[in-house]
Amino acid sequence: MSAQPVLVLVPGVAGGGTHAMPYAVAEEAAAQLTVIDLGVTRGDGVFETVGVFDGAPQNLGPHLQRLARSAEMLELPAPDLDILEEAFALAVHEHADVPELSVRVVMTRGNEGSGRPSAWIHARESVDWSRERAGIRVAALSRGLPSTVVADAPWLLAGAKTLSYAGNMAAVREAKRRGADDVLFVSTDGYALEGPTSTLLVRHGEAFSTTPVSAGVLQGTSVASAFALLAAEGASTGERLMTPAEVAASDGAWLLSSTRLVAPITHLDAQELPQDPELTARLLDHLRGR
Amino acid sequence: MSAQPVLVLVPGVAGGGTHAMPYAVAEEAAAQLTVIDLGVTRGDGVFETVGVFDGAPQNLGPHLQRLARSAEMLELPAPDLDILEEAFALAVHEHADVPELSVRVVMTRGNEGSGRPSAWIHARESVDWSRERAGIRVAALSRGLPSTVVADAPWLLAGAKTLSYAGNMAAVREAKRRGADDVLFVSTDGYALEGPTSTLLVRHGEAFSTTPVSAGVLQGTSVASAFALLAAEGASTGERLMTPAEVAASDGAWLLSSTRLVAPITHLDAQELPQDPELTARLLDHLRGR
Repeated sequence: MSAQPVLVLVPGVAGGGTHAMPYAVAEEAAAQLTVIDLGVTRGDGVFETVGVFDGAPQNLGPHLQRLARSAEMLELPAPDLDILEEAFALAVHEHADVPELSVRVVMTRGNEGSGRPSAWIHARESVDWSRERAGIRVAALSRGLPSTVVADAPWLLAGAKTLSYAGNMAAVREAKRRGADDVLFVSTDGYALEGPTSTLLVRHGEAFSTTPVSAGVLQGTSVASAFALLAAEGASTGERLMTPAEVAASDGAWLLSSTRLVAPITHLDAQELPQDPELTARLLDHLRGR
Repeated sequence: MSAQPVLVLVPGVAGGGTHAMPYAVAEEAAAQLTVIDLGVTRGDGVFETVGVFDGAPQNLGPHLQRLARSAEMLELPAPDLDILEEAFALAVHEHADVPELSVRVVMTRGNEGSGRPSAWIHARESVDWSRERAGIRVAALSRGLPSTVVADAPWLLAGAKTLSYAGNMAAVREAKRRGADDVLFVSTDGYALEGPTSTLLVRHGEAFSTTPVSAGVLQGTSVASAFALLAAEGASTGERLMTPAEVAASDGAWLLSSTRLVAPITHLDAQELPQDPELTARLLDHLRGR
């Protein structure tokens, strides 16, 4: 990576028209947050990561809508999505032209006691995902939570994309210790959920399934795009609770996300899965907006 | 609160003697962290909050030891506890003399890709806890996790004091919606665990119990101090798994923490609990080091 990352601060994220400059480019390498920002002291905030391919953001609208839903679950002020969209466009515009940008949109509860959220857009060139797009080994790891957690305990924020990701990162380290590249979380009642930063897509014949949002997973923006392609090709698509054994015995499985896009699962723990490089390539092209 | 908070940055937290100035006072109100600090982007870090009463830190050693254990669970660099202790003393020294200080010790994984943790000590006058020390209403809320989580899924970091506290904060908001002041988390297998920022102490006759650390709770520094007092007075003390019903039917229960110190539970959901203001006052005096 040689191109410099770009930072756009968005002090006007909560709208209200009180900011003459609701967003502005800032020095990326400089300190921008205080040590009493609840984003850092409590992981108390929400985020999205959006892929930009050849200058075109993919699924920006759905990402911002999901950010707003996450904010609502955390009882944060409602983000002004128009302002965020303008600030996003500025960050992309200010960045050098590169094939793949990874752009993070973050909103925290802000400095403790201030009542004013902190928000920013951070654009940087994506890392090279070519190896992962060719295939990943995945370890099935318990998330500790039942698939009924959203209904039973909404305060646990399952399904919100919060900054409290320490456990997700620790799970990835555990997977690497096991010789895998990534994680498929499993509920305590035995269902495959999602990856720490990705959504599950599983094929059985011409039926493609993902985990129901009601099981406490994030609503995948990429899987919605993939479903649109697959449905147009005549496949059936939908949400379904699946066990890891069903995933392992499927006709193919992928972890989808916004910047890595499509990572076919070659192995779930010790079990090898069938590969379809042509379909994977078609999904990849579709998700990057070609 | 009128006295100004004090910030001491600790760039030399990981030791190694490479820092001419391993710690230094910094401008508290100024930005000190970048937007790529993993502490904010992933809640990827650890912390402790230490009470300082009439200038004397309480349980600083156990707090720093627990910080080191949390760091180990997150595979962070080992903090240099001598340097942290010196930096802590500086922060307390620089702060105006007040009866009660709340001092946070934080270490994050630092800027993404840097491999260098960020760390700081932040001292500020405590809020007035007198109302909570007279009694709190507590709502029992599921934590979603079984009491076996530490053994079954260590990557979930139960028992580590991480910066990923969004769920803890959301649980407190839920408790307030229910007309309560605080939360007692309950495991999915039906055991009382801890509060979002406190440890449970329960009395049955002359036996005092807290939740076993093996159930995925933090090892309480205050409860260890309380046990020392109670054991010296002839009571029996120990760890025991208890149901919320056992807590509700006890001879008294408290949530202990480092700055609020002792909060007697007046009600667990609708159930009223017996009060012993004399014992609560004795615990309070002991925990603040009198």
